[in-house]
Amino acid sequence: MQLRAVPDLPEIRPGDDLAALLAERVDLDPGSVLCLASTVVSKAEGRFAALSEYPAGPRAREIATRLEEHTGEEKDPRFAQAVLEESTEIITEAPFLLTETHFGHTCVNAGIDRSNTGGEDLLLLPKRPSESAARLSEALSVPVIVTDTCGRPFRHGQRGVAIGWAGMAASRDWRGERDRDGRELGVTVENVIDELAAAANLVAGEGAGGVPAVVVEGFEFGKMDGSDEHFRDVEDDYVRQALRGWSHE
Amino acid sequence: MQLRAVPDLPEIRPGDDLAALLAERVDLDPGSVLCLASTVVSKAEGRFAALSEYPAGPRAREIATRLEEHTGEEKDPRFAQAVLEESTEIITEAPFLLTETHFGHTCVNAGIDRSNTGGEDLLLLPKRPSESAARLSEALSVPVIVTDTCGRPFRHGQRGVAIGWAGMAASRDWRGERDRDGRELGVTVENVIDELAAAANLVAGEGAGGVPAVVVEGFEFGKMDGSDEHFRDVEDDYVRQALRGWSHE
Repeated sequence: MQLRAVPDLPEIRPGDDLAALLAERVDLDPGSVLCLASTVVSKAEGRFAALSEYPAGPRAREIATRLEEHTGEEKDPRFAQAVLEESTEIITEAPFLLTETHFGHTCVNAGIDRSNTGGEDLLLLPKRPSESAARLSEALSVPVIVTDTCGRPFRHGQRGVAIGWAGMAASRDWRGERDRDGRELGVTVENVIDELAAAANLVAGEGAGGVPAVVVEGFEFGKMDGSDEHFRDVEDDYVRQALRGWSHE
Repeated sequence: MQLRAVPDLPEIRPGDDLAALLAERVDLDPGSVLCLASTVVSKAEGRFAALSEYPAGPRAREIATRLEEHTGEEKDPRFAQAVLEESTEIITEAPFLLTETHFGHTCVNAGIDRSNTGGEDLLLLPKRPSESAARLSEALSVPVIVTDTCGRPFRHGQRGVAIGWAGMAASRDWRGERDRDGRELGVTVENVIDELAAAANLVAGEGAGGVPAVVVEGFEFGKMDGSDEHFRDVEDDYVRQALRGWSHE
């Protein structure tokens, strides 16, 4: 399996034809997978925003105050308002604002970016990353994964994850497979789009030298999981249930 | 960046010289990273166990009963006893047994495997995976990552993670880096050993056809994080704090 960065992609602006810009710079063999940082998808889709567009309501002001108490840092209630508007559920308010986005992704601050925003205050995640991936996948005739970088429980640091995907299922399905001794496997469903996003992140890097598009060649799809599930349902997510009832004092 | 599976590794038995078996099968260039499934490290270290070695105490019997109530499946209290003995803290008992292992890894059932156990009841994780990695790294003169596969909150399915590492730091450090507009980056510490483990898992596969050793070539280390932190401290892990106080009914 091989990963290569797509070279020389220019700074992306609203309305840019991302598929055309990519097709000019890389030959995509059938069987390869394109991983694309959500930042460039958001920029092409014009998901920039100014804080002034988010006059803070009472809930946002309350959250900003709680966050200030917890972190000792000044928090702009308009930023909290932007996070609220991008979310369907607030899971924790403090010591960090963990929410579920409209498209089902659980992350801090609804993934709203304050760096790499091209001079604007904010860069929001794509509105529907899997729909963005589907448009690009259709234009480029390969599976497309839209990636983001975020932290997680139990483990230090951040890593790449998939937030949208098209042209392939989210997981490889090992159910029914046997080990060398003929016993059924303990591991059954392998979330390959997150693993591909993590692998791409190793090549992409960050900052001014970062590269937002990475092509994966030679990935063996195998038997894919028909459910195409990626984000956990709440009923199945005990950690989320625990966080809902929890208050950090 | 390129990943290739190490071919034709035989079934590993206690006492096998894993470094020699690997060196016979693959040329390791300086700058490459070797990812090795914990199963083969455990097998070489003789971490097989029989359930009869774990007569269940009162706590293990209590946990097995709670798990039976929650899952409707029969649970062997000796298995719960094995998990207890491999752990320093029980984080949740039901609906799954989430613990911290002696070496700091948070996972279900202390990572104890019941498939791929070579005819024994259980295969435990390596006792100190980073020490195992250090021995292999020294013998092979490349960084070594010991990997496992596990589930996680918020997201469906399992993915590869690092549980031991040597010869490199756990993370790449982007602190102080700037974006194209000169703003400081939001993402600061990238846990590359987990990303490498995830990438290797894409190549390794599972089951009888699975390959436990994968070589990564062409990974650009960049500026690595001096702390070498990988597992979160409890004070820094709000999700773990929430789970401690939580009881699923």
